Parts: sequence; C-alpha cells; structure tokens
Amino acid sequence: MRVHAVKLAPVTAETRPPVRRAIAELETSRIAEVWQLGFDRDDLIGLWVGEGDQATPRFICDAAAAALGDGHTFYTHKCGLPELRRAIAAYQAGLYRRPPVGIDRVTVTQSGMNAIMMAMQMLVDAGDNVVCVSPVWPNIYAAIEIMGGEVRHVALTGRPDGGFSLDLDRLIAAVDRRTHAVFVASPGNPTGWVMPGEQQRALLDFCRARRVWIISDEVYARFVYHRPVEDRPAAPSMLEIVEPEDRVLVVNSFSKAWAMTGWRLGWVTHPAYMGPIFDKVIEYNTCGAQAFLQYGALAALSDGEDFVRQVVRRCRRGRDVVTRGLGQMRRVRLAEPEAAFYAFFAVDGMDDSLSTAKQLLHATGVGLAPGSAFGPGGEGHLRLCFASDAGRLETAMARLRPHLS
Amino acid sequence: MRVHAVKLAPVTAETRPPVRRAIAELETSRIAEVWQLGFDRDDLIGLWVGEGDQATPRFICDAAAAALGDGHTFYTHKCGLPELRRAIAAYQAGLYRRPPVGIDRVTVTQSGMNAIMMAMQMLVDAGDNVVCVSPVWPNIYAAIEIMGGEVRHVALTGRPDGGFSLDLDRLIAAVDRRTHAVFVASPGNPTGWVMPGEQQRALLDFCRARRVWIISDEVYARFVYHRPVEDRPAAPSMLEIVEPEDRVLVVNSFSKAWAMTGWRLGWVTHPAYMGPIFDKVIEYNTCGAQAFLQYGALAALSDGEDFVRQVVRRCRRGRDVVTRGLGQMRRVRLAEPEAAFYAFFAVDGMDDSLSTAKQLLHATGVGLAPGSAFGPGGEGHLRLCFASDAGRLETAMARLRPHLS
Repeated sequence: MRVHAVKLAPVTAETRPPVRRAIAELETSRIAEVWQLGFDRDDLIGLWVGEGDQATPRFICDAAAAALGDGHTFYTHKCGLPELRRAIAAYQAGLYRRPPVGIDRVTVTQSGMNAIMMAMQMLVDAGDNVVCVSPVWPNIYAAIEIMGGEVRHVALTGRPDGGFSLDLDRLIAAVDRRTHAVFVASPGNPTGWVMPGEQQRALLDFCRARRVWIISDEVYARFVYHRPVEDRPAAPSMLEIVEPEDRVLVVNSFSKAWAMTGWRLGWVTHPAYMGPIFDKVIEYNTCGAQAFLQYGALAALSDGEDFVRQVVRRCRRGRDVVTRGLGQMRRVRLAEPEAAFYAFFAVDGMDDSLSTAKQLLHATGVGLAPGSAFGPGGEGHLRLCFASDAGRLETAMARLRPHLS
Repeated sequence: MRVHAVKLAPVTAETRPPVRRAIAELETSRIAEVWQLGFDRDDLIGLWVGEGDQATPRFICDAAAAALGDGHTFYTHKCGLPELRRAIAAYQAGLYRRPPVGIDRVTVTQSGMNAIMMAMQMLVDAGDNVVCVSPVWPNIYAAIEIMGGEVRHVALTGRPDGGFSLDLDRLIAAVDRRTHAVFVASPGNPTGWVMPGEQQRALLDFCRARRVWIISDEVYARFVYHRPVEDRPAAPSMLEIVEPEDRVLVVNSFSKAWAMTGWRLGWVTHPAYMGPIFDKVIEYNTCGAQAFLQYGALAALSDGEDFVRQVVRRCRRGRDVVTRGLGQMRRVRLAEPEAAFYAFFAVDGMDDSLSTAKQLLHATGVGLAPGSAFGPGGEGHLRLCFASDAGRLETAMARLRPHLS
C-alpha cells in the first residue's frame, strides 16, 4: 500500500487536544460496555465483574464504624497503621510458613489497583516497557499506558482441554533493555491459571540477573480448588521464595477474600528500601488509606479466617455448578478452573466476544464479560464470575444452555 | 567553562537503579522532616500540618456507618454516587448563586490530592510543563514531576506588610507551547492569598485563547475572613465565571470545611466532555471512592452548613490569637491572613527555615512548617496552622515569643 506523505499541521491553540494522546486512546473497559446495557433489566444475573455477591461481614463493618466513632478521622501514617502492617506480615507468615517480614516491608494501599498504578509510576518512564502475561485484567495495561509505557503481551498458551499454560521462554524472550518489570497475576484473572512454583523460581532467577522487577499480583491467592483447602490454603506465592532485597512487589487486597471490594484497601510486600519510596508516592496520590477503614481490615485479619474459608467453599460450589453446566453445552470448552473465581471458557465459532456478550445479555439477561477485554489470548472466550449463590448460577446455566449448545 | 567529554557507562544489570530518576529525585516533604522530630514530645503543639484539631462531626460518621451496615460495600459508580454529585452541584449553585451544573460535570475523587494527580495524568506528557503560582502545597510540584513534567514557578510578590500579590504578566510570560496547565490555589496554602475576581477573569481569557487548562484548587474556599461570613461565605471562585466548555478543573475537598481530612474524599467540577475521561482514569487509579463513605459526604452537604460556619468562626478566633501574638514579636512580619487557615510569616534574619523550624521545635515544642517546603518565595517564612483551639494557640504564642522577639 502506498501512503502519500502528508504534512501534519502544527498544534495550535485551535487544534490542541484537551488531553494527552495516551489518555484519549485508553480503551473504555469492554466489560463496562456490556454492563451498561444491563442497567434496566429486572431479571438481570450479572456475572461480569470480579466481585462476590456477599456484603462485607458485620464484624469488619463494626470495627470500622467503632474507629469512626472513636475519632480516627485525621491524617494517618501514609504507609498504613503499624499494627495493620504487623498483622499483614503475621498473616502472610502463617499462610506460607515463613518468618514474618518486618513492617518496613509492608505498605497499605488504597486498593490493589492503586498499588499497581503507583508501581508503574515508580518504574515506568515514557518509552519503557512492561512484559505482561496475558490475558489479564485490562487495568494493568492501562496503568502502564498512562505512564507512557509500552505493554508487551506474552499470551498464555491455550491447551486443547480449555486450560492455560505459560511458555516461560517466550516471556524471557520478550524482555529487553527497556523492560523494567514483568507483570504476572497468579492465580490469574480471567484464566484461573496458577503459575507453578518452579516457574516462579525460574522467573525470579532470570529477573534477579537482569535487575528487572516482578510485579506479582496475588489478590486471588486464597481461591484455590485443586487440593483440599486444609492441605494448602493458598496458591504458590512469590513470598515463599523472595529474598529481602529482591526486586519483587507482591500485591494483595482485602477485596476478594474478605468481601471488601468497596473498601478500596490493598497492600504490597516489597524490599525495605522501597518503603520510603512508597511513602513519597502515596503522599502524592492519595495521602494514604483511611485510618478508620484500616481498623476494619485489622479485624478481617484477626477474626476473618472462618469467613475466608466459607467464601472459598462457596466459590467451590459455584465452580462446580458452572463447570458442570457449561460442560453440558456443546459449543463450550472449559477446563475446570483450579483457582480464582472465574470460568473463562472458549466458545466454538465465536470470533467477536463483545457482540456475543451483548447478544447473550439481550437474549438471556445473563451478564458475561467478553474475552477480548483481557488482551491477546482473550478473544474467543467469555468470562463468568462464579463467586455467587449456587441457585442463581443454576438459573444462569439454564438460561445460557439453549444459546451455547 | 570547559566540560570534558565523558563517556557514560551504559546501564547494565549491575548499575540499573531500582526506580525512575524522577521518583528517586522527588523530595521528601520538609514538613514531614520536622514532624518526625516531634514524635516523642509529650508537650508538643503540632501546628505544622493542614488539618484542624476537631474530629469529623458525629452525624457524618453515623451516616457512613449506617451505609456500611446497610451493605453498601460493593463496587460503585466510578465517578461517584449520582445523588452525591447532584448534592455537590446544588451546594455550589447555592454558594455562588448560579444555576446548578449537570452531574455530568461533577466527579467525586479519592481526595483533592487524588484529583490533582489524575489531572496531571490526563494533561502532562513527559517534557510538558505546568505553570504554578508559588509558594504552594509542594505535593502539586511532585504530581507534575511524577508524570515527567516540568514545574514552572511563578512566585507571588511579597509585599512589605507581609502580604502577597500576583503579577499576572509574569504568570502569562511563563506560559509557552509546552504549557498544558496553569495551577492556582486560591485561597492559597500556605499564603492565604486570595486571587481577585478580576485576575481570575483575565487568566481565564488568556487560557481560553491559548487552550491551556486552569487547575483551580479551591479547597479553602469557605475559609474567608475579610468580610462578614454572612455577606459572602466563600472566596471568588472560577465556578462563578466558567462557561461549560472551558478548560477549567475546579478541585475541592471535604477535608477542611467538614473536618474530614482522614476520609480522603474530594471532587472536581469540569466540562462535561471530561466526565468519560475521569471515568477511565479513576478506574485505573483507585476504581472510585467508597460508596459508604460517600453517604457520609452526602450528610455533610445536607446537614453540615452550621458545622462549616462553626469551623470557620473557630479559625477566625485562631487567626486573631495568632495575628496578635505574632504581631508582638519583633522579628516577625505578617499581614493578617484574609483566607485559608495558615499564618505564613516572615522572620527577619532567617535564611534557613528548615533548621529554624527544627530549632524552634526543640526549644519550644511548637511544630511549624518551614517555608522552604513550599517552593520559590517560601524561604524566609514559617507556616503555622491556626485551625486549632484558641487556648492551645495562646500557649504556642507564649512559647514562641522569647525566640522570635
């Protein structure tokens, strides 16, 4: 194709766009695009967003309300209340059977998303790149692009059974001199993929040698189904293998395991030398999470273990309903998800998941997220959140069956 | 000067710094530097941070606690609850006697700081600049620098009486082709300077013609002392003169007027075409402010006017104590602050406000912020927050007197 040389007009007062090109070009979430179409439906079963259908348990709400009543309404420690950071360190130490890290290695953030946005602010200069294992929550890509960075996708390999695996050599080949971080979410959203411990170790060795950061998103750590929950209550974690100085940021959140999506509270485990950096960058983003909400998070860690196990059991039931239901639909391919709380299933013959999601919403009232929202490797799939009541999921299956069989 | 050509060593795995240079070079707040020295003092009177000494009133806390109990703990509208945005529009309409704007022109943010950080994300590409009227809250400079932008300071002119005024011609001369925004805080922190309505109009005319954004930080709008509060309960606002399409972002916050610093809730009034942009950028920063906290903010707007007036009266008393007290100290020059809640006073013979603030803390237990923290025009001054109990301020005056006379 021949392209005629066009002399671009200079930017003048008349033509100056209102916002940066990187911002104008940010995609609106395709999940939200389907979501908006469902606002007026009375019979809606929305399984599109990454959120359970249970409200935050009362004892957590009460702890926050008590702190509010006690006047904890002032500015507070930017990196989080020391007692909460200590409780996080102890929680992780118990979960992974490692000695607790010092609180100088734990920072509380205004959600996991906020932690990731701040990590990108710290690491990504314009023109740098971040290698991302995809498909993944599209917000990750956007945070990189806001900083003027380039997203390098390394798509998981789809297996014939509908499951996913990572070709680590491809990931390593994608890293170059402008790569400042590798982003891995395990357990993965939307795929439910779990990075094996050996791959974590190999990736850590590689990134150590190259001084490349690993951002390890572990917000679904507790949602594992492949073994009895009592045997091992979490997916393999970078926290099990990092040394104190390693360039690894492990991101977590209170949202999923404690049903606190609306609280916007997360945390990062990091090398101690990053503590003062987080302190600075938090000051210039949000000035720190609300002290009175942090008392709720403290209650979650102190008294929430039974609740977490109940949430995970409930998701396991949801997974069983959905795996069985979708398994009976002829056009669907799905490996039983081993972790997280999504069925990310392939639909034979579907090449536009966005329009399919819209059609299914229109025809059935069931809200699903289009796979294309999650980047390379996502098209051809739909995502269904099964962190929901089993009966509601059964109804969704019955409605979807005629359309996917 | 002759510079020898030096061949820089390439960045290798061994030399790669952990974070971006822009982040490593961010200044740690000099206010915090003094603050940390005071942690162990029992007799401390900390007047360094921008926060009153009253907790959030009970009716606001109760509204948030009730919403928490009612299960408003899920993801919510990213730009804020429609009812809160409507209440903000109505509040501003009443204050400035203008018709209310549509809720598509109001976005709720996770603090005023968060609004400013997101504005910089939207407007500042690496190498762009933002013209800032200084001295100002140093967080503004940092938000620009995080985005790889350049801060162009235009210092207020210090008057012989200790007051400040803006030379608008100097501001206009600082704007060039890479200027995407002018940042003005009025009433100003730390100076208490109020931009006259005529200057606001002239600046708006200029920025319209050049298509440069104005970021107007009006978080101290209610703290005005120069006329009876009943006559005009707010400083001149950009909201009184903007047209719907103007490139103006007016930032406000619940922190100061409703004693909600710890809640991290603010808002922006913007052209309607920026609504979808905020929606996107919020998604990738914090995913939106907590729904249950927004019910607290709604109570603040519905039932908080008496409280706001009480807070402002209390600040006026604090101002009187401090103006009289400092006025009796020989080395101090201070014009009676007309707005905000700070005395930003010059000290004769002081050329290092940071070390003076440390010495004063050591000698008197009174915590002040060094003027140098606030950028050009700040050195030679100290900042004292008078949003405090009058008796406590009298004690502070008595302790400072021997050192500043």
